[in-house]
Amino acid sequence: MLHFDTDYMEGAHPKIMQRLMETNLEHTVGYGSDEYSKSARQKIREACNAPDALVQFLIGGTQTNATVIDALLHRHEGVLAAETAHINVHESGAVEHSGHKVLTLPSYDGKVSANDVRKFIDDFYADETYEHMVAPGMLYITQPTEYGTIYSLKELEELSDICHSHDIPLYLDGARLGYALASDEADFTLADIARVCDVFYIGGTKVGAMFGEAVVAKNPNTLKHFFPLVKQHGALMAKGRMQGVQFETLFTDNMYVDIARHAVRLAQKLRKAFEDKGYKMAVNSPTNQQFVTLPNDVMDRLRQHATFEQWGIRGEHETTVRFVTSWATTEEDVDAFIEKI
Amino acid sequence: MLHFDTDYMEGAHPKIMQRLMETNLEHTVGYGSDEYSKSARQKIREACNAPDALVQFLIGGTQTNATVIDALLHRHEGVLAAETAHINVHESGAVEHSGHKVLTLPSYDGKVSANDVRKFIDDFYADETYEHMVAPGMLYITQPTEYGTIYSLKELEELSDICHSHDIPLYLDGARLGYALASDEADFTLADIARVCDVFYIGGTKVGAMFGEAVVAKNPNTLKHFFPLVKQHGALMAKGRMQGVQFETLFTDNMYVDIARHAVRLAQKLRKAFEDKGYKMAVNSPTNQQFVTLPNDVMDRLRQHATFEQWGIRGEHETTVRFVTSWATTEEDVDAFIEKI
Amino acid sequence: MLHFDTDYMEGAHPKIMQRLMETNLEHTVGYGSDEYSKSARQKIREACNAPDALVQFLIGGTQTNATVIDALLHRHEGVLAAETAHINVHESGAVEHSGHKVLTLPSYDGKVSANDVRKFIDDFYADETYEHMVAPGMLYITQPTEYGTIYSLKELEELSDICHSHDIPLYLDGARLGYALASDEADFTLADIARVCDVFYIGGTKVGAMFGEAVVAKNPNTLKHFFPLVKQHGALMAKGRMQGVQFETLFTDNMYVDIARHAVRLAQKLRKAFEDKGYKMAVNSPTNQQFVTLPNDVMDRLRQHATFEQWGIRGEHETTVRFVTSWATTEEDVDAFIEKI
Amino acid sequence: MLHFDTDYMEGAHPKIMQRLMETNLEHTVGYGSDEYSKSARQKIREACNAPDALVQFLIGGTQTNATVIDALLHRHEGVLAAETAHINVHESGAVEHSGHKVLTLPSYDGKVSANDVRKFIDDFYADETYEHMVAPGMLYITQPTEYGTIYSLKELEELSDICHSHDIPLYLDGARLGYALASDEADFTLADIARVCDVFYIGGTKVGAMFGEAVVAKNPNTLKHFFPLVKQHGALMAKGRMQGVQFETLFTDNMYVDIARHAVRLAQKLRKAFEDKGYKMAVNSPTNQQFVTLPNDVMDRLRQHATFEQWGIRGEHETTVRFVTSWATTEEDVDAFIEKI
Repeated sequence: MLHFDTDYMEGAHPKIMQRLMETNLEHTVGYGSDEYSKSARQKIREACNAPDALVQFLIGGTQTNATVIDALLHRHEGVLAAETAHINVHESGAVEHSGHKVLTLPSYDGKVSANDVRKFIDDFYADETYEHMVAPGMLYITQPTEYGTIYSLKELEELSDICHSHDIPLYLDGARLGYALASDEADFTLADIARVCDVFYIGGTKVGAMFGEAVVAKNPNTLKHFFPLVKQHGALMAKGRMQGVQFETLFTDNMYVDIARHAVRLAQKLRKAFEDKGYKMAVNSPTNQQFVTLPNDVMDRLRQHATFEQWGIRGEHETTVRFVTSWATTEEDVDAFIEKI
Repeated sequence: MLHFDTDYMEGAHPKIMQRLMETNLEHTVGYGSDEYSKSARQKIREACNAPDALVQFLIGGTQTNATVIDALLHRHEGVLAAETAHINVHESGAVEHSGHKVLTLPSYDGKVSANDVRKFIDDFYADETYEHMVAPGMLYITQPTEYGTIYSLKELEELSDICHSHDIPLYLDGARLGYALASDEADFTLADIARVCDVFYIGGTKVGAMFGEAVVAKNPNTLKHFFPLVKQHGALMAKGRMQGVQFETLFTDNMYVDIARHAVRLAQKLRKAFEDKGYKMAVNSPTNQQFVTLPNDVMDRLRQHATFEQWGIRGEHETTVRFVTSWATTEEDVDAFIEKI
Repeated sequence: MLHFDTDYMEGAHPKIMQRLMETNLEHTVGYGSDEYSKSARQKIREACNAPDALVQFLIGGTQTNATVIDALLHRHEGVLAAETAHINVHESGAVEHSGHKVLTLPSYDGKVSANDVRKFIDDFYADETYEHMVAPGMLYITQPTEYGTIYSLKELEELSDICHSHDIPLYLDGARLGYALASDEADFTLADIARVCDVFYIGGTKVGAMFGEAVVAKNPNTLKHFFPLVKQHGALMAKGRMQGVQFETLFTDNMYVDIARHAVRLAQKLRKAFEDKGYKMAVNSPTNQQFVTLPNDVMDRLRQHATFEQWGIRGEHETTVRFVTSWATTEEDVDAFIEKI
Repeated sequence: MLHFDTDYMEGAHPKIMQRLMETNLEHTVGYGSDEYSKSARQKIREACNAPDALVQFLIGGTQTNATVIDALLHRHEGVLAAETAHINVHESGAVEHSGHKVLTLPSYDGKVSANDVRKFIDDFYADETYEHMVAPGMLYITQPTEYGTIYSLKELEELSDICHSHDIPLYLDGARLGYALASDEADFTLADIARVCDVFYIGGTKVGAMFGEAVVAKNPNTLKHFFPLVKQHGALMAKGRMQGVQFETLFTDNMYVDIARHAVRLAQKLRKAFEDKGYKMAVNSPTNQQFVTLPNDVMDRLRQHATFEQWGIRGEHETTVRFVTSWATTEEDVDAFIEKI
């Protein structure tokens, strides 16, 4: 059986496992004060061209979003996000658990539009009763989105400009950031991301690490008192060097983007195979997630050869499904599957 | 330099690392539904003699405490705990972040007394204004405590009886549970713990795992809807099998207690060496943490050979310090240090 | 200048003021344990034909909604509500402040449809990842709605059936309940409301009282431990008898509905006057709020004679505005205004 | 039967009732934007000699404390308070409901000492693990305290200095502030209070009003975005002018302090009567609450003539009880009771 369910089905990239083994018996202090964590933070600052940046490691995406959003918002504020955003749909109310409302915007294949953001904020303050409503206190976007799409640099800059002209921060959820950076359509670098976003995180869990997410804020004052908040949110690791070793490895020799590029290339190969057979891609995704609408009999037949997720409800005649590749997907597996399409 | 700071300075026990390596490239589903996690849960149920128990893996201690306490309490209730309890002192307000007050009891070397618990509850309901106060909704204890001491089985049963006669659950924080079970003074088994406690957790991070804590509730109804709450608290791991592989290993061939026994034996050896030299132990601890009050010049001299934590403020003439051993501490290191005492 | 802005522009109904004066210097115990509060609770139970009901007085609508919703939901659950619901729009995130998400349904002039509720719940549990999402834990409706519309008894019973067949409670926000009961289209009594709803509140602030809302739960177990939660939410009044005196007065000689009927009759008179002039009602409202779409020049002219609220944004040619009557509105004022239409 | 239970057993001062009656049928806008509220805010600013102050009306003490504390603290911070403080004991966990821990200090008849505050903060930052603990983010005091005692101006200035030298705000809960200002021992004015405190509130409920508390911040930036937070906490009144009318009356012709002086004088008369009979005052209180330790037979006998609260548990031979006077207590009642002592 082949596997295209998600990008978190395997352990860690072998190079990471090797480094974890090599360093396993060393003694270091906890909570991220060790030398591996320091080195990893420094390498990330360099890759981001953000020498003063705060870099803090957390463990998983939901806790990272909840903690960063809690840190950025005033108590009376909510977070603007696409209605399809992970924080609005698949995080069991973690944002609300900390007391904040998700203010939803229309989703265009997972993306928000600059115009919608501007209109929401302008309409909000034009309403005389706005002090009885939840104020838009920040913008949350995902890159790539839950649908595999990516914002262009121009789109990011527009969103950044709107946020800053309205004095709210822009936060980018980069759970799969590597796959955006590795896309052929990417016209931005990690340094661009660091420049246009007030805060973002570099996803490790879905891009080669066993676990771990690196929050980056180019200006540390944006996330004042972040460390105790991370602890309060239960997101601080005792053996913090585990994150340090992993991110140090990922940010050595461009490994983070290289392993993502492998995944993106294989996803595009899959896509081409579907398109060549005349199937309709449900989304135009340049990254490692591919959504294709298949006749039900084709879908059922393919399920005998591979695991993959149904996206939404099974239709009467055809159904949209998702295929995901990762650093661990092999060319052989993709080729074997393409033969079955 | 030797290291006796804490029991989370190294990576994972070599057998765990080996299993993580062996299984690294396998594909499994996420969030703990994989076969390794299932097997680990089954092994824990067997070790607890609790065939119907809910077993849920979380990542670290603070998030485990915050999530379990949030699950057990009604909104108007607080958690009874020793004033020295980890949740009251060292978790950055994680319990309060979820809306609950810590109701403090006197601490006797980290332990609470059955009488104090009974008196608190009885006095509470004897107060005519009790509905304006935070009701005691559960009891939190640590085993071993933050001071290395342990409750005897009789003491646990007394606390359990008081809780149940007042209709509140007993929750035991077992961040270092292995070191309690491995103590020469332990007159209880893991099955006893499971029997007397409504909920407890088996600490992995400090007893051989890279990370991971296993929450156990003998009656699953005690923690209804726990899974989405774990997610909401940001405590659910995408690559859940990492916890499964680790706990499966720890609960094979009694490894969890065996590696803890090694640590406890070395700690007691250290203790005896201090006592033989005439130094006063600050606490009578039968586990892997030893607190000794040293003349300041002795403390300063020993710091040249080993790292260890100062416990509280440096005194004018003498100071209390803590030495901690772990599965990773070697006999050679302990012997080398004893020579310096 | 005439006033049709809202139904909370004046003080209390003169009969209430008279009773507050008469009893002003009496000494009573606090927090609602006094005889006036007891009598008021008993009169409400009788009017609701719910002899065992819990009746608890709170002060205002937002705090009542936040407290009741917090009491009814488990931590991982959210509240289903129309996207136009007061709790979703105009309560500054009070529901989220207590940690809960508002799960929105389409709004049909302020009402939710039974089919949408059923579909939401069924789709939710049909989704394999539902434990990563916020579970629908209760249904919130307003009667009358924010648009003045009312649910028929049949509609209420359908919603009640759907809720109970899915094991979630139905909560009705009756901030303006009197105006629904007094409507010509009302085919339900207060006893019907009490029967079909698990919890609801009888609004005082907008129906004759100076302040105060009476929460009713026919089965007190539905709101276990409600009193300390009311205190925790800052919604408990020290001088609780103020609410007792007011509600005792409102529930003597059917006053609550009678004064509302006066307001509804005047609102319908206004409506007829607009319709007779050929203006289009934006909503078909049988209660005390009337929404009419006026040419901008007409709106501007009318503003010289009366205050009223613009509903949404001023259109290019015409704009929707709201007129509200209350127990305090006089026939003379309405007639004087009709002359200006 | 005479009544000395509390200072919130009656309605409102007759002058307030009169003004509420006179203005009852006027139409005004809601939420405190009316002219009465504006005038009341202006009169309070003048009485405080704080021309730029933010003045916001809330309804009751618990909600005021919860809202102000939530507004002043960062998320990782807690509030320093005496262990006997109202927020720590009698508010059902309202502070924790908003996510904050109460950090307790020793209580000296209800007061905190400047030294203890300084030591707590200094010790906190001297602890290397302080980022794992709840940071002291503000100081909460009551004036008069729950025991009727008052801080002198010098004590207030010391506390203020310590707070400001450590960059945290000082917040004073003035639920009974009038009785402090009216005390013979008061060496401070309302303007002094406004000067030394960053935020405080002027209690209405216990000093002549039917309900209502006025929060004052000399520098409005201290409570940025306070209005939506008040709404979010359910503490905003629709008919806001009710608070305006009441506070406007209380702050006309020095009424607020004058009616409190009456109560304090009668309380001191009671105290003298007890002392003359040889009974021991449990606290040296110069305000309207008097705590006296009585032989149980005396206490039981007096209960036949008056209601008053037992303070704590009934002792074997003697018990401490509390007598409270208010603006509504009459000289006749006090004299009648003194005859019974």
